[in-house]
Amino acid sequence: MSSVSQLKPFLEPKSIAVVGANPNSGEQAFNIVENLGNCGYQGKVYPVNPNYKEILGKRCYPSVKEIPGDVDLAIIVTPRKVVPQIVSQCGEKGIKAAIVVGQGFSDSADEEGKRLQQQLVEVARNGGVRILGPNTVGSANAFINFTTSFLKQTDIRKLPVGVVCQSGLFFGTVGRLRLLGKGLDLGNSCDIDVAEAMEYFAEDPQVKVIVLHIEGIRDGKRFREVARRVVKKKPVLVLKTGRSERSARAAQSHTGSLVGKDEVWDAVFKQCGIIRANDIDELGDLVRAFSYLPPLKGRRIGVVTASGGIGIMTLDACAKYNLEVVELTPETKQRLTAMSPTWYKAGNPLDIWPLIISSSHPFGETLRAAMTEVLGDPRVDAIVVFAGAWFQGFKPLITDVMKETADAFPDKPIAWCPYDGWLFDIRSRDLADKLEEAGRAAAFSIPDDAVRALARLADYSEFRNRTA
Amino acid sequence: MSSVSQLKPFLEPKSIAVVGANPNSGEQAFNIVENLGNCGYQGKVYPVNPNYKEILGKRCYPSVKEIPGDVDLAIIVTPRKVVPQIVSQCGEKGIKAAIVVGQGFSDSADEEGKRLQQQLVEVARNGGVRILGPNTVGSANAFINFTTSFLKQTDIRKLPVGVVCQSGLFFGTVGRLRLLGKGLDLGNSCDIDVAEAMEYFAEDPQVKVIVLHIEGIRDGKRFREVARRVVKKKPVLVLKTGRSERSARAAQSHTGSLVGKDEVWDAVFKQCGIIRANDIDELGDLVRAFSYLPPLKGRRIGVVTASGGIGIMTLDACAKYNLEVVELTPETKQRLTAMSPTWYKAGNPLDIWPLIISSSHPFGETLRAAMTEVLGDPRVDAIVVFAGAWFQGFKPLITDVMKETADAFPDKPIAWCPYDGWLFDIRSRDLADKLEEAGRAAAFSIPDDAVRALARLADYSEFRNRTA
Repeated sequence: MSSVSQLKPFLEPKSIAVVGANPNSGEQAFNIVENLGNCGYQGKVYPVNPNYKEILGKRCYPSVKEIPGDVDLAIIVTPRKVVPQIVSQCGEKGIKAAIVVGQGFSDSADEEGKRLQQQLVEVARNGGVRILGPNTVGSANAFINFTTSFLKQTDIRKLPVGVVCQSGLFFGTVGRLRLLGKGLDLGNSCDIDVAEAMEYFAEDPQVKVIVLHIEGIRDGKRFREVARRVVKKKPVLVLKTGRSERSARAAQSHTGSLVGKDEVWDAVFKQCGIIRANDIDELGDLVRAFSYLPPLKGRRIGVVTASGGIGIMTLDACAKYNLEVVELTPETKQRLTAMSPTWYKAGNPLDIWPLIISSSHPFGETLRAAMTEVLGDPRVDAIVVFAGAWFQGFKPLITDVMKETADAFPDKPIAWCPYDGWLFDIRSRDLADKLEEAGRAAAFSIPDDAVRALARLADYSEFRNRTA
Repeated sequence: MSSVSQLKPFLEPKSIAVVGANPNSGEQAFNIVENLGNCGYQGKVYPVNPNYKEILGKRCYPSVKEIPGDVDLAIIVTPRKVVPQIVSQCGEKGIKAAIVVGQGFSDSADEEGKRLQQQLVEVARNGGVRILGPNTVGSANAFINFTTSFLKQTDIRKLPVGVVCQSGLFFGTVGRLRLLGKGLDLGNSCDIDVAEAMEYFAEDPQVKVIVLHIEGIRDGKRFREVARRVVKKKPVLVLKTGRSERSARAAQSHTGSLVGKDEVWDAVFKQCGIIRANDIDELGDLVRAFSYLPPLKGRRIGVVTASGGIGIMTLDACAKYNLEVVELTPETKQRLTAMSPTWYKAGNPLDIWPLIISSSHPFGETLRAAMTEVLGDPRVDAIVVFAGAWFQGFKPLITDVMKETADAFPDKPIAWCPYDGWLFDIRSRDLADKLEEAGRAAAFSIPDDAVRALARLADYSEFRNRTA
């Protein structure tokens, strides 16, 4: 697929020209040359600007054509009116890939912007230059410490996720979502579109989960065709915005996208097996579940909780998302009962608090034993655990318990709700990060979110089984 | 209302007996005597335990009856079988209020537990002792640095919130919720119930918002009557769990509560004007909105965003929650257009990024000007702001901008989405806390949550207007 390989320079560039580079430094300078250095990008970076001889210690060239070596990718940050001319020069230089960062093209209120975008498309086609954007933050690849973001961004985690979006938002951190792995911000999508980007990540061996943020697309038929193929290889998660008529119009003016009725989108996603998130936080949760957890083999859930109240909320959530809080085997129940005070009937959900309070077992041992029993039950496909680092002393302990039990049952997803961490100024989030990156568990704010994510894992497994 | 004043010792005790106190120290000792000291509680604390002469430097008494002074409140942490006898002694001593912490009463699987709870109720009634619990963390009051929690809890914020719950969960921090102001954990609710607790907080001048966590209640009719009265005075928020048949059964065994069909509950809440949250995080968001923001006078929303993509998501959310992203007045639009690049048509949502990029205005000035214009528009009742401390340098700046604009428009709620703060290791949450406590804004994870909370504020205003 030649089209797919044409996207490679956007994600794996060995040499980059930054056209319109500026010599300013510091976090508010929005300086891409500086950001590439801060990231630790090891390829060649050529600043281009006729007004400077040197930028941040690098020789600066008056145009891309004066650059001595090959250039894989041009990042264009000039005012809009000179962009077509620069893309034309890229073509002459043999640069096959260009990111157009600036706004004011098909996203603009004036006719000039629309005309400029059309001109840009023509010039690019004639010169054999593929375009990402305009109106984009560009591309990123954590595995080579690379991002074209003009906002300082040094913490892209090396995770097997490919993000395709239409907003620079996804190159930062918002709510529970942060940029992971590799990213392509399509912006106005004048050339490279969702289908092509999705196809690229489908072929990329470093990507296991594909994440889409779509405001609108030009070619619905092609999207469906590509999506059907891709979903059979890798899970595809989507946040489709512009759902109401009003917001769809706004999407049109934001990135000049074509849009359609939300119910149609919903049907298309279902048909293709694409998993839809309703907001950024849900998308963040799903990314976490699909990136960190093994596939879920069934819908039978075990619940281990340090709060009876949370056990009930987890039951509510499982009913809502069609997961079964399963009856444990008599053998498991018997062993759990042996650990319990006489007045407590151990079952599922399993409240470990009576076990902690009534026994001489410390918290960590009780949690370990409870998780081992419930995960080990042949009727259980995955567990939700609600237990936090309430005390400073639990911090290393709880991480160990999660790791060890996850190692013992590598085929059963563990969805962990570690509390938030205000209470003792322990950043549970940091614990969660470490665990998640070790592929041991995924962490969620509350059981409702954990259950929702497990349900989507189960949906995907079922879809794969049906279409296999 | 004599019944109401009977709850006062649970929330405003001047002297406390801890029956079954232990001499252990440290965070895993679950020592209430120590916790009360750590909190900074200034009242008298009398440890009671026949096995010790002294506990943590305090004289320890063999029974409550030997305590020389008056005792407002007994906290009973003994094994279940001696509880009725101790409550009887409390009655003899003239202690009018007792918290029974232990489990294994109507929450237990055995008959003995149910029998003991019945006996406890009888003994208490005969002795004139009101009971909170059993199976409870007890009570808390941030204004007098008081909590009976056996988990270390030193950070209850002094905010005008009264929490009535059936789980110790609410005495810690979970998801986006943490204990604020004053709290009563009803546990099995053998005596004090939701209606009575709600009525108490309705009369408490330090409480402006009432928060309920209900698994089940005994007297639905009384609940409705009280709720109708209370909602006319103060907003009441509820998280009702045990929604499915299965989870309702679990709620029954958790706290021995009577339960009912979820649709019935939903109708009751609507009828009474109680605002229902669907999960803990939503409850946390609503607590924040109702505690920190002024009443919302209409459903017309202004959106100020540093991301066009977020603007579209905010429109989606407003459509979902029936808020209107209003057309700004021509005057406001004109002034915003004067600040914009020629290709950007300033409107609502207002994307401030084109204004920042295309002008020489720094971020803070642009945000301030944009918020001032949109808040100042007579068509706007409240605003959603999406702008974060992307850079270290923005941290004090953004707080100042939020404070100043909030001061200038004290009658218009500001719902702020400050991002999460992973990106630059800035804890935006800390900024948000300070702002919120100054009553200047409420902070949310994503615009969807901000919009949902504003919609509930509007619902409550409309309910008050209808029933006034």
